Amino acid sequence: MKTLIVVAHPKIDDSSSQAFFKAGATLVEDATWHPLVEPFDVREERALLMAADRIILQFPLYWYQAPSSLPKWLNEVWSVDFASHLKGKQLAVVLTLGRQLQDYQPGAAVGVTLSDLLSPYVALANTCEMTWVPPLVVAQFARMTEAQRQSLLIRYQQFLSLPDTHFQTISQWWVDQLNKRPEAAQIAQTLQERQEHLASLRQSVKEAQDDE
Amino acid sequence: MKTLIVVAHPKIDDSSSQAFFKAGATLVEDATWHPLVEPFDVREERALLMAADRIILQFPLYWYQAPSSLPKWLNEVWSVDFASHLKGKQLAVVLTLGRQLQDYQPGAAVGVTLSDLLSPYVALANTCEMTWVPPLVVAQFARMTEAQRQSLLIRYQQFLSLPDTHFQTISQWWVDQLNKRPEAAQIAQTLQERQEHLASLRQSVKEAQDDE
Repeated sequence: MKTLIVVAHPKIDDSSSQAFFKAGATLVEDATWHPLVEPFDVREERALLMAADRIILQFPLYWYQAPSSLPKWLNEVWSVDFASHLKGKQLAVVLTLGRQLQDYQPGAAVGVTLSDLLSPYVALANTCEMTWVPPLVVAQFARMTEAQRQSLLIRYQQFLSLPDTHFQTISQWWVDQLNKRPEAAQIAQTLQERQEHLASLRQSVKEAQDDE
Repeated sequence: MKTLIVVAHPKIDDSSSQAFFKAGATLVEDATWHPLVEPFDVREERALLMAADRIILQFPLYWYQAPSSLPKWLNEVWSVDFASHLKGKQLAVVLTLGRQLQDYQPGAAVGVTLSDLLSPYVALANTCEMTWVPPLVVAQFARMTEAQRQSLLIRYQQFLSLPDTHFQTISQWWVDQLNKRPEAAQIAQTLQERQEHLASLRQSVKEAQDDE
């Protein structure tokens, strides 16, 4: 799966979270890190979009909206005619928040949900007949512990490379990662065996259910 | 009530709906027509905002978001520190749509609602402790009949000048409008009398209810 990461951030070089994501993305084969820089070369931008299977829009919220470079890019690059070429591709968002997650609900400080705030991108996926992938939301990166960041790195890499979030897909991802390191081959072997065992158990349960 | 109309439209001079609204706004005392033009003079923009009781953000949707000049303006002008000066003011949106209204619901072409799409501005009002005024939504202006446009003109002028949409406030607006034209003085007189009669009936109903 080829993934294009369109990053909209006015001060990307000062952002510790974007530096973190960039480092994570370089470790993922077939992922292209693409920060938006004005003016846009429409031809080049469209070629990048056409080549991708999953298009990720990655940005912080400023006053509850993406930085202005993103709507500008959408208006210049993503014309209605061109959008027909994107049909069937996946659209996803990686969102970074300065506020805590619980602020985004009725009655709390912000008072609206993240689903509300991301609705323009859901609508974009709908009208372009793209598949909307539930977003990866990262709140208060600056306050994360080292362990939380390690976990985030893995979630981010999976978000860039996995076609879905099924249990089996994620297990296979771990097997692949471990197999890349010779010292972890034994763990990978055990994980692989357990997964096969699990698949066989699942099959038995299914057959039992079908019998009823 | 002083009203500031902040218009975000990249081709405002080519827009027949914005020309229509501009003509309507000039007839309203205490309404300031203010199209966004980059670069922004932050000091001047803030002075306009401080002087207003109702701040209207007026824009079309491009890919389900405001044109990029609006988030840019918000980020440059509307800092967190400055926002404290806007506390208690009203925030409203005038939205123009190329699509028909029924496209904005689950299962329809766009698949999300206008309330979803306007949620960034509701959140803005919430965190700045401003009063959110339900939006004026204008779908497919180009296809409107002459009668529909006349009705829209009145709704728009009321939206710019009335503090609320109570029946009595709107009635009084009509009386004021008619009184401006000598030939309509008799209608205004009748309307005024009916309104007083209505107020007295309301009082009687209230007293009757209190007796129970």
